[in-house]
Amino acid sequence: MQRPLILVTNDDGITSHGILNLVNVMKELGDVLVVAPNSPQSGMGHAITVGDTLRLNESSIFEGVRAYECSGTPADCVKIARHFILKDQRQPDVVVSGINHGSNTSISVLYSGTMSAAIEGAIEGTPAIGFSLCDYSHKADFSHGLSYVKKITQQVLRKGLPKGSALNVNIPPKRNESIKGIRICRQANAKWVEDFDQRFDPNGRSYFWMSGNFVNFDKGEDNDEWAIANNFVSVVPCQFDLTAHQAIPVLNEEWDIFE
Amino acid sequence: MQRPLILVTNDDGITSHGILNLVNVMKELGDVLVVAPNSPQSGMGHAITVGDTLRLNESSIFEGVRAYECSGTPADCVKIARHFILKDQRQPDVVVSGINHGSNTSISVLYSGTMSAAIEGAIEGTPAIGFSLCDYSHKADFSHGLSYVKKITQQVLRKGLPKGSALNVNIPPKRNESIKGIRICRQANAKWVEDFDQRFDPNGRSYFWMSGNFVNFDKGEDNDEWAIANNFVSVVPCQFDLTAHQAIPVLNEEWDIFE
Repeated sequence: MQRPLILVTNDDGITSHGILNLVNVMKELGDVLVVAPNSPQSGMGHAITVGDTLRLNESSIFEGVRAYECSGTPADCVKIARHFILKDQRQPDVVVSGINHGSNTSISVLYSGTMSAAIEGAIEGTPAIGFSLCDYSHKADFSHGLSYVKKITQQVLRKGLPKGSALNVNIPPKRNESIKGIRICRQANAKWVEDFDQRFDPNGRSYFWMSGNFVNFDKGEDNDEWAIANNFVSVVPCQFDLTAHQAIPVLNEEWDIFE
Repeated sequence: MQRPLILVTNDDGITSHGILNLVNVMKELGDVLVVAPNSPQSGMGHAITVGDTLRLNESSIFEGVRAYECSGTPADCVKIARHFILKDQRQPDVVVSGINHGSNTSISVLYSGTMSAAIEGAIEGTPAIGFSLCDYSHKADFSHGLSYVKKITQQVLRKGLPKGSALNVNIPPKRNESIKGIRICRQANAKWVEDFDQRFDPNGRSYFWMSGNFVNFDKGEDNDEWAIANNFVSVVPCQFDLTAHQAIPVLNEEWDIFE
């Protein structure tokens, strides 16, 4: 049987510790192609490069692995892999993104460059997974999660994914107790409340640092925040159809401007 | 009755023709606060500024309207309006974004800075609308759509929106035939197929321009692409819960790695 072709990307940049861990796991599962940003792209959401140019250079950063660094966003990386590097060639069997340094649970999925790369894979009809470790430290320990990264990717390679979906996988931080297992979840109902720290530059002009506090409104046990808090790996299937289908009949009923 | 407070933003930047048209309509409906990017932010998706600073300056660009230009993304603009400019003050009754120079139908909603600002409003529980004109020209004529922008905003101010949703409104380009009316739609099933035009700079190093061709797979008549093609204003209610709920039982059934 042909070894699967695995496209690896991330949003923390090609030199991050998280993508090195992901590449090492994926080498055990198939042939790996890395196309990752040449600089950190955290918080880029589903940004793409419009109205500016892109650079793409081969990289020898991963031993024995074909790799490219790109000046664009995570979504750009998936697009250029597919439509330039692999143009008219065999396309990836799976797209994996991460491992992100920091949580992408709940509402953070919207801001996540890690997940935008996975969603981009799903739009192309390729099974795709974004992996994040719920530990923001640059020196975070990924070791306790790697067997789950492998198992989940193997399941997806073997069974595919429901059409139009990509997986948002979050791994609890390393704790004294080992991970309890895997839970399929929904996105928790939560948000960020921002704080703007106003400072003044040497010329006396103001600037701001944005920071945020995460507020969880969700009391359920079937969501990703609960899973992480309870030491499970959370797996949320995400879709790129943003239609609030249940709102369509409501608007058709309530509005009186259809003429 | 108190006049509504209307927060206006966009992704083409505070100097664009589209936001001027939007501000002029909103002045008829309430008190307007503009917080918009100081440069074009097309294709920014739901990006936010993480790991870098933000600038915010008052602007007198709109006569008689309180306005600020911000160095950040559309989502940043909504956040800084809420949590800095209006901190501890009355919050907006509606967030409107646009009018975008170009279509944000179908899958483009994911890449749209216009819609990310509206979604950001919805996350905060504020009714929010992104308006786009399906004409990419910088000299696009917005006049035929403005009565719809007004009517739709009035409906939303009067009736609110279903919880967790924001509206993605697209207006057909100016045609010989006038607009036929408004349709509540779902997001069409379509995608972009990218093309990477490789060129060489004066130093002989390669760079790329990304362009895309839109491919519509959708044969239905209840989607936004159909509406625009048939000269209706399309209104898609969008949600920020990305969970593919229907995929949860499938994965629970199919996977064998739950231990």
